[in-house]
Amino acid sequence: MLLTIIYIIAITAEAMTGALSAGRRSMDWFGVILIACVTALGGGSVRDVLLGHYPLGWVKHPEYLVLTCGAALFTMLIANWMKQLRAMFLLLDALGLIGFTIIGCQIAIHLGHGFVISAVAGVLTGVSGGILRDILCNDIPLVFRRELYASISFVAVICYWVCIQLGVLLEWTVIITLIFGFSLRVIAIRFGLEMPKFIYQDDDEHSASSKDV
Amino acid sequence: MLLTIIYIIAITAEAMTGALSAGRRSMDWFGVILIACVTALGGGSVRDVLLGHYPLGWVKHPEYLVLTCGAALFTMLIANWMKQLRAMFLLLDALGLIGFTIIGCQIAIHLGHGFVISAVAGVLTGVSGGILRDILCNDIPLVFRRELYASISFVAVICYWVCIQLGVLLEWTVIITLIFGFSLRVIAIRFGLEMPKFIYQDDDEHSASSKDV
Amino acid sequence: MLLTIIYIIAITAEAMTGALSAGRRSMDWFGVILIACVTALGGGSVRDVLLGHYPLGWVKHPEYLVLTCGAALFTMLIANWMKQLRAMFLLLDALGLIGFTIIGCQIAIHLGHGFVISAVAGVLTGVSGGILRDILCNDIPLVFRRELYASISFVAVICYWVCIQLGVLLEWTVIITLIFGFSLRVIAIRFGLEMPKFIYQDDDEHSASSKDV
Repeated sequence: MLLTIIYIIAITAEAMTGALSAGRRSMDWFGVILIACVTALGGGSVRDVLLGHYPLGWVKHPEYLVLTCGAALFTMLIANWMKQLRAMFLLLDALGLIGFTIIGCQIAIHLGHGFVISAVAGVLTGVSGGILRDILCNDIPLVFRRELYASISFVAVICYWVCIQLGVLLEWTVIITLIFGFSLRVIAIRFGLEMPKFIYQDDDEHSASSKDV
Repeated sequence: MLLTIIYIIAITAEAMTGALSAGRRSMDWFGVILIACVTALGGGSVRDVLLGHYPLGWVKHPEYLVLTCGAALFTMLIANWMKQLRAMFLLLDALGLIGFTIIGCQIAIHLGHGFVISAVAGVLTGVSGGILRDILCNDIPLVFRRELYASISFVAVICYWVCIQLGVLLEWTVIITLIFGFSLRVIAIRFGLEMPKFIYQDDDEHSASSKDV
Repeated sequence: MLLTIIYIIAITAEAMTGALSAGRRSMDWFGVILIACVTALGGGSVRDVLLGHYPLGWVKHPEYLVLTCGAALFTMLIANWMKQLRAMFLLLDALGLIGFTIIGCQIAIHLGHGFVISAVAGVLTGVSGGILRDILCNDIPLVFRRELYASISFVAVICYWVCIQLGVLLEWTVIITLIFGFSLRVIAIRFGLEMPKFIYQDDDEHSASSKDV
């Protein structure tokens, strides 16, 4: 119940960030709606396709798809007011990240997978919508270059898993993970915490690239 | 029967546009063939993977894959004559768009889905081959920035759905949708009709991007 | 048995090339790990999703995922020594290419597919990890622009298929294909052999692009 509410908040918030990204690239309305849907529902779709968990969420519940399209259209209407809402957005997005992560993790556990696959499912659900959005907008995914984001999703998975192993009730596990992950994300944004970067330079970019093929 | 013929024309035309795109990026023959296959068969594959509709079309009928490869090789041979064939190409591509849309829509209806999912399936089949082509060529997908294209696919879905609901015979539904969608696309090209664009600019691109993460 | 060893070498080598690519783009640790996993395991995942072959390899054997993550972390540690290891890398990568190809081909044959689909499965397994890596790093996939790579994967499929048809024992088929494909790749690198390129230029890039939509 709580998770459904968080899921709805999360897809709405993600759809709106997707629509803004598309607007920065001056896409047409169709592009805006498609990017919004991919951002909001892409993470769960990637997870379900990789785990063979059919039907996908939005195929079973097309109302989520309609909600996402509505959020995209609404974003176009109120875009000029959005700049004042930056702080609220970041908080909704943080809530969405942890909500998506918990949902992804739960689905993998229900399918009988162990910790590694549940962690992958949780993190994928949390971050891959944003990665797909950035690929469609022809950017290097921001997830890889910004404040702690995917790593917080991973820490939330660990928190969830530890609670489950300790026998904490499912409702409490969800609430603890939400509060813990959300607080971490807020701290990361507030202080601009970043993951360490790995910077590698070849002496000779051209000849080196044959190594990559 | 009619749809099979249109499907074959459509994948051939799409394969050729894919091959030309690859040629603009000076790819090697393998790249040309791969981009041609992705452009022609990618839309249907995305739809089938998302709907869990296995086996995929080209896995069941590898001859379509062979045809696509052949079309790519043929395009390389006649590339210099292609410039004179621009108009014909646009017409074949328009036919393909509507044909793909109808096929995608039909498959979703056969799987028991309602209007929303059928519309998504139709539009995805029509446009996502071209989106994948542009991602592989490292472009922002043209679909989002050009004359009416995806929206015509969507209008064709509505036309198809309305005909079905009105009890029109399937053959007639296909023919009406084809003529209607095709005419719309030709009009859109002729008069350069575009979807309205959503243009959004942050005051500060850098600080704003944290909103996107 | 031999194939399992080659598979482990291959995913380790591919994970390391992925990590270096991510490092060239100054990604953070999470990005490095994700790109490494996608490069190493993405080819097999694409094949399995397209063929509907569930569960995916790394879902069934999460230890491969752990190995890939370990290889990525290890690469970050020893990156400065990697430049001296270029030659070794190219050889491991060549081994991986042929190993992946053989595995992909075998899986398709086990699923009852014919030559065309087996060839696609082999080549996809061999090359699509690298293609996904380049998309995530926002490059035009190198596979399409470098020395013979995908085409060697295709030749290895033909070699494998011919051996099977001639009734050669499976072990010998694997060994012959490995030696043959590996030698071809080494020759291609040594002499800088490339596929012919298809270069296509429109008179007018702007107006021509409507043809692509």
